[in-house]
Amino acid sequence: MPDFRRYLPILDWGRSYDKTAFSNDMIAAVIVTIMLIPQSLAYAMLAGLPPEAGLYASIVPILLYAVFGTSRALAVGPVAVVSLMTAAAVGQIAEQGTIGYAAAALSLALLSGLMLLAMGIFRLGFVANFLSHPVIAGFITASGILIAVSQLKHIFGVSASGHTLPEIVHSLWTHLGDTNVITLVIGIIAIAFLFWVRLGMKDALIKLGLSNSVAGVLTKAGPVAAVAVTTMAVALFRLDESGVKIVGSVPQSLPPLTMPALSPDLLQQLLLPAALITIIGFVESISVAQTLAAKKRQRINPDQELIGLGAANIGAAFTGGYPVTGGFARSVVNYDAGAETPAAGAFTAIGLAIAALALTPLIYFLPTATLAATIIVAVLGLVDLSILKHAWTYNRADFAAVLATILLTLGFGVEAGVSAGVIISIAMHLFRTSRPHVAEVGLVPGTQHFRNIKRHKVETDPEILTLRVDEALWFANARFLEDQILDRLTKDCALKHVILMFSAVNQVDLSALETLEALNKRLDEQGIKLHLSEVKGPVMDRLQRAHFLEELTGKVYLAQYDAWRDLHDATPIKAVS
Amino acid sequence: MPDFRRYLPILDWGRSYDKTAFSNDMIAAVIVTIMLIPQSLAYAMLAGLPPEAGLYASIVPILLYAVFGTSRALAVGPVAVVSLMTAAAVGQIAEQGTIGYAAAALSLALLSGLMLLAMGIFRLGFVANFLSHPVIAGFITASGILIAVSQLKHIFGVSASGHTLPEIVHSLWTHLGDTNVITLVIGIIAIAFLFWVRLGMKDALIKLGLSNSVAGVLTKAGPVAAVAVTTMAVALFRLDESGVKIVGSVPQSLPPLTMPALSPDLLQQLLLPAALITIIGFVESISVAQTLAAKKRQRINPDQELIGLGAANIGAAFTGGYPVTGGFARSVVNYDAGAETPAAGAFTAIGLAIAALALTPLIYFLPTATLAATIIVAVLGLVDLSILKHAWTYNRADFAAVLATILLTLGFGVEAGVSAGVIISIAMHLFRTSRPHVAEVGLVPGTQHFRNIKRHKVETDPEILTLRVDEALWFANARFLEDQILDRLTKDCALKHVILMFSAVNQVDLSALETLEALNKRLDEQGIKLHLSEVKGPVMDRLQRAHFLEELTGKVYLAQYDAWRDLHDATPIKAVS
Repeated sequence: MPDFRRYLPILDWGRSYDKTAFSNDMIAAVIVTIMLIPQSLAYAMLAGLPPEAGLYASIVPILLYAVFGTSRALAVGPVAVVSLMTAAAVGQIAEQGTIGYAAAALSLALLSGLMLLAMGIFRLGFVANFLSHPVIAGFITASGILIAVSQLKHIFGVSASGHTLPEIVHSLWTHLGDTNVITLVIGIIAIAFLFWVRLGMKDALIKLGLSNSVAGVLTKAGPVAAVAVTTMAVALFRLDESGVKIVGSVPQSLPPLTMPALSPDLLQQLLLPAALITIIGFVESISVAQTLAAKKRQRINPDQELIGLGAANIGAAFTGGYPVTGGFARSVVNYDAGAETPAAGAFTAIGLAIAALALTPLIYFLPTATLAATIIVAVLGLVDLSILKHAWTYNRADFAAVLATILLTLGFGVEAGVSAGVIISIAMHLFRTSRPHVAEVGLVPGTQHFRNIKRHKVETDPEILTLRVDEALWFANARFLEDQILDRLTKDCALKHVILMFSAVNQVDLSALETLEALNKRLDEQGIKLHLSEVKGPVMDRLQRAHFLEELTGKVYLAQYDAWRDLHDATPIKAVS
Repeated sequence: MPDFRRYLPILDWGRSYDKTAFSNDMIAAVIVTIMLIPQSLAYAMLAGLPPEAGLYASIVPILLYAVFGTSRALAVGPVAVVSLMTAAAVGQIAEQGTIGYAAAALSLALLSGLMLLAMGIFRLGFVANFLSHPVIAGFITASGILIAVSQLKHIFGVSASGHTLPEIVHSLWTHLGDTNVITLVIGIIAIAFLFWVRLGMKDALIKLGLSNSVAGVLTKAGPVAAVAVTTMAVALFRLDESGVKIVGSVPQSLPPLTMPALSPDLLQQLLLPAALITIIGFVESISVAQTLAAKKRQRINPDQELIGLGAANIGAAFTGGYPVTGGFARSVVNYDAGAETPAAGAFTAIGLAIAALALTPLIYFLPTATLAATIIVAVLGLVDLSILKHAWTYNRADFAAVLATILLTLGFGVEAGVSAGVIISIAMHLFRTSRPHVAEVGLVPGTQHFRNIKRHKVETDPEILTLRVDEALWFANARFLEDQILDRLTKDCALKHVILMFSAVNQVDLSALETLEALNKRLDEQGIKLHLSEVKGPVMDRLQRAHFLEELTGKVYLAQYDAWRDLHDATPIKAVS
């Protein structure tokens, strides 16, 4: 049953599952669970949902991904950027805290899941390639800044709103007078501690004599320590009565069965946000999965990944979650902790289910400032402005795309940012290919090579004009090319032959064929013959089929050097009159 | 004042205007005026507007184009496809016959005019190139069919509605019982007569001994004859009392000063239709203008054309018209009649102004069936299904784009059709370039040329893999290329060198650079060196700037043959183990 196995990778790794794999997966699961508890609560808060939604979004989706996904190390669940996008999308439809808000988040997960599933079934995984790397980098960086700034309100203990940088900053600024000093102290200490956990704790523990792996595990537990200590501090001194905001009562429950809202109006409003979340979620997930697979020389199947992520999101929609994807940080932790198969994910799900069922009373006094600190420290790791410098050195067009994506994301929100990123990068590619580089070439003396007359010392012939076209010919550049050639012609009266060197012409579409036919005719009227050289096989096949070669006034040469020998050596060089 | 002349081409041709040009322009104007009177009335009806709107749309716009346009022969005014698009756009907003309908048509002309003007000022004329020729051909053909079918209701004298082929056919079918026989007879006779005018009248007149040019002028007057004869028939026998629909009273007036509706809601609704009308109108106009200019070895300036058309549409918006553009039929007639300068257009405008002022009482009894016949015969000239056959032979992808455009236009209306055409053609181009052709090449014995090992008998070396990449490397294909190369590697264990032959790589963007860096590293881990050959100047400049060449494990060769001599001749050929 080969087809069955394509859609159910679990049948593949499941049959060779043994005790070693089990114990490795188990250890990884424990570490990831410890890391995920505070993170899941925090990302749910970022998405505007009650904290338990973050736990629920990490249980059933992980199990479904373990069955349908192909990556051995990918950990699926709520991630920062998708949580922010969820808040932006659902925030336009319902008030935070209402039942409508939670239901719309479920619908968003369902829509996104169905889109992922459909893309997987129709093998459309390649569309992820249409987001350029620099644009993604810019978007992630800008989102990280947006997220960090949006969490400052919890650190200051004030209320603030907005989905764009100016909105959030303005709202924060006007509320700064209401700052709760105790909250601010907790927040700053938590941020400082978490930064130290991230940057210095492991080395410090190793210096204290702990082994590398134990130090690693303890470092992963750092955020849990921050949660425990601040929760205890609030509980002991009843800081909540002094205005420190706390998580409060969270239901003790396994993920509930939920029904997404399905009104056509709502679904229509969520269609575009769902599509954007689908694209961004898939791109993030697939890059993580590919990076980790490459390290172990494994291959992942992008189309099956879509099915795995689709199943995970549909699962989230029916079990009280919200859109999920494969997260970078958690997957790397899972990989580093030695996860061998998707079973590690399943064990993590069990761990989180126990947490949801038994541990929620313990976080009653957890201050939201601690969760905000967790988010801020996590997302600042995403912010990497060096992409701007890198792009600037390499290519101004790439730089413009990155800068525009960053500024639009900060200024107009995540949806505007990612839409603009996609459109700008495709538009720039189209614009570039619509103005092909056309070089006049001549023979490099003593060789059979032809090079740009502006860059090399080459031999030319006043009766022969050889142009190398550096682009596939298609509808957007055909007329531009025609203009360039005709402009060039007006300068030369001695001209008898025009050779188009097609070594870099990878395609000639029907519009371009019509242009070539017109050019052939126009040159013929002026007594000039049109020749082609170095035409590639696939292009040649098409030109033959269209009977263009019969109309062509000149010849088609296998090599440019043959054309030169034929046309130039038969006609001795004359001086320009 | 060179800049002044760029924006006012009239200063260019106006200073050399003489008596010969005047008399030639005058003759052309008389012929075009005779042709335009029935056509303008008919197209206004097609757009759902009162007949005089067609006349008004041909007066001030022509004058403004004469001042700002660069084409010597283009005749601006209402055309069939744009009239249909106007009806489709405005019909969604207001009922035909209401003041709101006419005002929305004015707003549409204003918006389209402003868009054209802005594109002209920012020199965005090149965007017209992003519509592929076959897609335009398909759209025009489908529009022609839609228009012809939509006019059948006037021939049968029934009421029918709809903007798509199924809607119109269904509506016609259900109303067919109401057919007015007299109207049908008038309609069929008018159609038959006009077809004869088009196909056989000129030859018949020449056989009767008339000179070629007189026969030509009389042929142009054929539609006027149809109008005159059917109008007289209706008036004499008072056929209107038997249910033949007539034009009725048309105000005797010069174009009135009108104000387009400017409510933000309305403008927002018209934004997309206006953009589509702008694109289609510009593409139609520019192709006509370029074709006619080429015949006289003149050049037109696309950006200035945009300004000319923009001014014409803004003029239409304030003088009781609706969106206009340069029409094919009228421009060819103008050119054939000997028009030398845009002054011919100005004289035509004067002729039409006289008609609007003095002749409208004469068309009181003009049956709408005659106008419908005029339209049907005119647009069937646009229908050309041979583009389907042509595209099928050349390229299945182009064929699919044309077929989709035709079917979507017929099935979902003009706006859906043209939007789909643009999107499909760009998407197909992106898809094609996202899966580059990669050929393994070898040396053609006795030459310095390298060719595809699958198509030619060539020499290879088991230690050297040479791949020629037939596409610019950019974000959408970088990963695909990496996959192809890595897949290819697993088959060869003797491999020591991979040479990427960059003769057809016209661009390497930042995403692709990252992929090349990763590939270089991956090959290095396997002890394989990566070389490049035949790198183009602009690509080389960028790679140097990004310091990629310092990281590269192998070398960069000017020519592939140099690489072969260096790597192959230094290592004698070994058999594959």
